[in-house]
Parts: sequence; structure tokens; C-alpha cells
Amino acid sequence: MDYAKEALRLHKEWQGKLETVAKMKIETRDDLSLAYTPGVAAPCLEIEKDKSQSYVYTGRGHTIAVISDGSAVLGLGNIGPEAGMPVMEGKCVLFKALGGLDAVPLCLNTQNTDELVNIIAALEPSFGGINLEDIAAPRCFEIEKRLQERMNIPVFHDDQHGTAIVVCSALVNALRLVKKENPTIVINGAGSAGCAIARLILDLELGNVILVDRQGILVEGMNLTSGQEALLSRLNKEHKKGDLSEALKGADVFIGVSAGHIVSKEMIASMNEKAIVLPMANPIPEIEPDDAKAAGAYIVGTGRSDHPNQINNVLAFPGIFKGALDAQATQINDAMKKAAVYAIASMVDEKELRPEHIIVSALDKRVVPVVAKAVKQAAIDSGVIRKWDKE
Amino acid sequence: MDYAKEALRLHKEWQGKLETVAKMKIETRDDLSLAYTPGVAAPCLEIEKDKSQSYVYTGRGHTIAVISDGSAVLGLGNIGPEAGMPVMEGKCVLFKALGGLDAVPLCLNTQNTDELVNIIAALEPSFGGINLEDIAAPRCFEIEKRLQERMNIPVFHDDQHGTAIVVCSALVNALRLVKKENPTIVINGAGSAGCAIARLILDLELGNVILVDRQGILVEGMNLTSGQEALLSRLNKEHKKGDLSEALKGADVFIGVSAGHIVSKEMIASMNEKAIVLPMANPIPEIEPDDAKAAGAYIVGTGRSDHPNQINNVLAFPGIFKGALDAQATQINDAMKKAAVYAIASMVDEKELRPEHIIVSALDKRVVPVVAKAVKQAAIDSGVIRKWDKE
Repeated sequence: MDYAKEALRLHKEWQGKLETVAKMKIETRDDLSLAYTPGVAAPCLEIEKDKSQSYVYTGRGHTIAVISDGSAVLGLGNIGPEAGMPVMEGKCVLFKALGGLDAVPLCLNTQNTDELVNIIAALEPSFGGINLEDIAAPRCFEIEKRLQERMNIPVFHDDQHGTAIVVCSALVNALRLVKKENPTIVINGAGSAGCAIARLILDLELGNVILVDRQGILVEGMNLTSGQEALLSRLNKEHKKGDLSEALKGADVFIGVSAGHIVSKEMIASMNEKAIVLPMANPIPEIEPDDAKAAGAYIVGTGRSDHPNQINNVLAFPGIFKGALDAQATQINDAMKKAAVYAIASMVDEKELRPEHIIVSALDKRVVPVVAKAVKQAAIDSGVIRKWDKE
Repeated sequence: MDYAKEALRLHKEWQGKLETVAKMKIETRDDLSLAYTPGVAAPCLEIEKDKSQSYVYTGRGHTIAVISDGSAVLGLGNIGPEAGMPVMEGKCVLFKALGGLDAVPLCLNTQNTDELVNIIAALEPSFGGINLEDIAAPRCFEIEKRLQERMNIPVFHDDQHGTAIVVCSALVNALRLVKKENPTIVINGAGSAGCAIARLILDLELGNVILVDRQGILVEGMNLTSGQEALLSRLNKEHKKGDLSEALKGADVFIGVSAGHIVSKEMIASMNEKAIVLPMANPIPEIEPDDAKAAGAYIVGTGRSDHPNQINNVLAFPGIFKGALDAQATQINDAMKKAAVYAIASMVDEKELRPEHIIVSALDKRVVPVVAKAVKQAAIDSGVIRKWDKE
């Protein structure tokens, strides 16, 4: 199918992928008096007395905002807020279809960090959580951090953490299959996704991480972003130097969040035996799966749906937000992310696990309840449940 | 029915009166590839090339935001943004049920004018129009004015203009019935609604207006708000002085947007023959309709649904926004407001017109299409259609 052509036709037909639907009919004066004035004053007054009741009498407990400034939309770059809207609507569709959550797409007409922080923080009374989407690095780090400090609801930049969680789920299962301990993991691409993947792998103690970008293996003295700088002391325990091909020699895992066709068969062949190769650049992976296999890769996973082992953050965000909202968590912390990683990994059991099946299908309906339950429990156990009496 | 009790029970059951529903299913990989990546990139790129296409490929052409800071919710006062949410959700329900428009309730966590203006202006790429709701005077005037200057989509403070439009519709028909020309019209309550009603009556040249508040008939030298000040030279052509009871002596029309039970039978009796009395304070009117009738009023209308002639802005906002969005108008200007007044008035034809029926029922399904059509035409005729090539 020509997805571009068909998607254009459908988007024209849909004229917006979402609809706001009322849960009740408004046909009689009584209907009006109960859903609106004068009856509506009663729940207003309950919430005025006790703000926690906003989770009882309004929709915020199951409603999130999907927010972008249009500065880094898909791989299309800074196409602006109007043009980013179809993606945000699509994300909201997925939140509903997969997670049962109501989601509102908001594209904002500013790319100023201070303004974005002030605007998003002000939206708090209307929502149970904020999904940041397609905001350019390094602005995205500061925006997320400052919002997490200011807001009492979860703020989650999915391009960073959603991707990191699903990659780690795939990695956990792949390593289970090849039975390797303390593997050397090379990540190519050190932007927001690459850094988030590196950090989560290290937090989960899955192996030694070598982070590579266009200037080569990241080492001290290079011109680094604050996000890269913060990771540096935890990276590259073997003190390797050089470019990506140097990094891959003898490595056990390749993770690509960079650009299409930049990894050669020779590079894959130089890796350790039973190599795990996850070239996730979209739509063109760092190396075609068939080429990686031919060069000796044992396990291959990509971001694409037309190859085995699709590593898609659709597996993470609906369940993570559902769990966080169900718990009335104030944040999505490391414990909740870890719980999501192992919950997603657990969806492929020992008997099913094989090189062509290290991760569950993106549309498997069993995933969200399992992830949501694990994330909710982790929120409770780690004590990040909203405490209304202290506000 | 005990509306408060029943509304509380229902709101608990609903847990939010709105739902965000996707227009397509997400069950297969193709579904995902068309509504989301990679297909969604195609409409994004069309909009990047030409922003006007955001009305073709996203939902903004039928989606508005209902925005409040929770500072003047119903008659409950400054109850805050969380507590204002049930009203905003209810308003969105009405936009959908009556106008077929999708509406998103947003309660903002600030009551600072500059911040509100910056936040709301930044939401422009996501919406086709902004309905401001329950924002306290005098802040509401400045916020609306500054947003209208900054934004290319309609910004409409319904508490002012929606109310003014429906009052004027009722007044047009009432005056038709009593066959009075150049009547004296007393408005009690000189806040945002009172001033907006006065201005629209004067713009429509329906009569001589006397505006009264707690300090009495507004005259020069009093401590006035900027909104009152701007109207002063157009008011009180008879140069009356004194309190409300002085104002009402010999007057033809009373319009109340003030407080319950502050008008006596004696005051009504002092009015001119065939007096038109519209006590709209809610839930307790300035005078009970039966008392007004007993004191000699010829026509009585209130804001309540349990008396004849309910003057409810439900008659105005759905059709006005529908017409403005259908036209891709950049504003809701005076011509469009006037068109709405006469469209709503026209829903009661000569044969039906009688003192107990000067205004159409709030839930009459014929109203919205007629109002929307008239407003759209007025937008076109007055040249406020968005010109994308000039942006």
C-alpha cells in the first residue's frame, strides 16, 4: 500500500481524527439543568471544598494532553505547530484505542522554553497527565524537568522515555535468549532518544554502554550537550575511542537511533557472536534487516511493522499513562519505567522466545492491562501517589 | 426534582461529561500506518507547505476551546480552575449537542491577565475558535480585546456577548409585540453582562438605555470601570438621576442582570404601560414573574427554564460559533452579532408571537442552522474571512 497517498486521502475524509462526544443526551430542560445550570453548581462546590474531588466529578482522571511545539515532528524536523497536529491527533487516537484514555492534542504557537513551561504548567487543572511529544532537543530536557518540578501530575516526554522503555524490553528478552551477561552495547545517535536509552540501560544494569554520535564514541573533551555530559562518567567502561566501526568491533548489541543505511555488513560482521542488532531509524533503518542477518546478526529488530521484532513505543505509553493515572501518581519515576520494561518483556514467555520474536506485537490487546497494573503498583510502592491533604 | 442532589449523583457516575473518540479503528498494522506513522507524515507535509490545509487535514475547523480561569463561575464567584471544570465540560456538551461542534474544556491555573493572554494565544494552531467563559470583570474585557488583536481565530466571551445577543433577540420581539418605538430601557447590573447588553442595544438602536448599579443610575463623576466609562456618553438621554426605583418610573423595559428579589411590585407598577420585564438573575430573579405580572408587567422573561420566555444564551453560542467556523472568520464582529440577534428573534413568527412567547425554546433544534447561516453570511459580507495568502 502507498501509505502516504492513502493517508492523505483518509485524512481529508476524516477532517480531524478525533471527536468530542458527550456522555449524556441534551433533549429536555431537565437534561440541561443536570449537565449544566443550575445542577452543575453542586459538583463545582464539592471540588471547591476539596480539590481531590476533581478526579471524581470531572474527566481529568482519565484525560491527558498530548502537547507539542511542532519543532521535531517525526523525522520531518521543525515543521511548526499546525503541521504537527496530525501526529498529535494520531497519538491521541492510540491513547484511546489502546489505553482507553481520553487525550487532547494541543499544538502550541511558541518554541520558547520559558513560554512553553508556563503554558503547559497552567493546563494542570484540566488533565491527569501530560505527554510531551516531538519537541526538539536540548529544549525538551529542560522543559520536561522544569514541568516535573512545577506540576503535581505526570509529565512524560515520550520520544525519550517511551522509546527507551520499549528498547530495553526488547533488549532484556534478547539477552535472555543469547544468555549473555554484562554485554557491550553500542548506541548510535546521542540525541534525546539515544541518551534516554543509554540512561535506562545503565539504570537497569543491562550492560556496558558505548554512546556514539557523528563525532565518534563520546569521550571527555568533546563538545557535549548537558544530557550527554551527565551520562559520560557511566559510559564506555572499556575506554574505547574512534568512530562507530571501532565501537562495534567485538560489541554484543547495536542500537541505532540515528539515520538510514549508515551501518555496513562489515561492521556487523566485526561484532561478537550472537550479535543483537536493533537499527531503529525510521523509515529507513541503519542497516536493512536482511543485510544484518546475512552479516551474521543473530537477532534483528527495527521500528518497522513489516519486519519481525517491531520496537514501537505504542507498547509503552498507553499502559504507562493508564497505570500512572489509575494510581493518581504525581510523576512517572524510574521505578515505574523499570516496571514497564519488565512488564512489556514478560509478554513474550520462555516458550515463545526466539530470535524472530523477542517483543510482543504492537497491537496485542493483552499488553496495556499488564503494563498499567505493573506501573500502578510501582507508583504505590515508590510513594509517588498524590497526597491532597498536603497541598 | 432536586437538581443539586441529582446532578451530584450523575456527575459521580459520569466522571467527566466528555469523551474523546477516534473516528477510525486501530486493529491492524495498516490502521496504525495510516492514522499514525508512517502515513501521517503526508498530511503534515501538506500543512507545512500551506497552513490553510490545517482546516482540511485536522479537526480545527470544527473544534473550539472553552477556556476559563475559574474566577467568576456561574454565580459562585472565584471558586478556582479545578472547581470550574464541571461548568466548562457542560458548556462543551452543549456545543456538541446543539451545534455539532467539538469542544475542549480548559481550566487554567492562573488569574494573571498577561499570562492568560499568552497562554490562550499560544493555543491557536489547535483550534478554530476560543470561547472565553466565567472570567471575572474587568479582567475579562482586556483579555478578550488583547486576544482578538493577537489571534486570527474568533475569540468570544460568552458571558458578555452571548447574553447580550439573546436578551436583544427577546427585546426585539417584545418591542414588536407592544409596538413601541424609542422605548426607555433600564438595565440593572453594570458588570460585564450589563455593559455588553447596553452596548448591543445601542448598536441596534433599540431605545434609550439607562444603566444602573449599586451606586444608582450611572452618571458622570461616579467611580466607573473603563467599560462603563466607554458607554457613558451614549446612555441616559433623559438625564435621569437617582436609584433603580427612580430609573424605573415611566420606563418601558427592565432588564436585570444583578441579584435576586431586589425589584419590588411598586417599582414595576411605576413603569410605563405594557412594561417589558426581564429579571434574569439566576437562580433567583430580581422579581418573581408572578409578582411582576401582578404589578402590571405585560411581558415577563427570565433566565429560568420553569417560567415562560426563558432567555438562555444556549440559543446563541452554538450557532454563532458554527457560523463563524463555517466561514473561517477571523473574529465575531458586530455585524455577526446583529445577524445572530435577528436570526434568533425570527424563530418566533408573527402568528406565534404573544406575551408568553417572545423567544424560541432553548432546545429547539431549528435554531442553530438558522443562526449559523446568518452569522456565516454576515462574516462574508463584512469581510472578516481568513485570508491565508496574507499571513
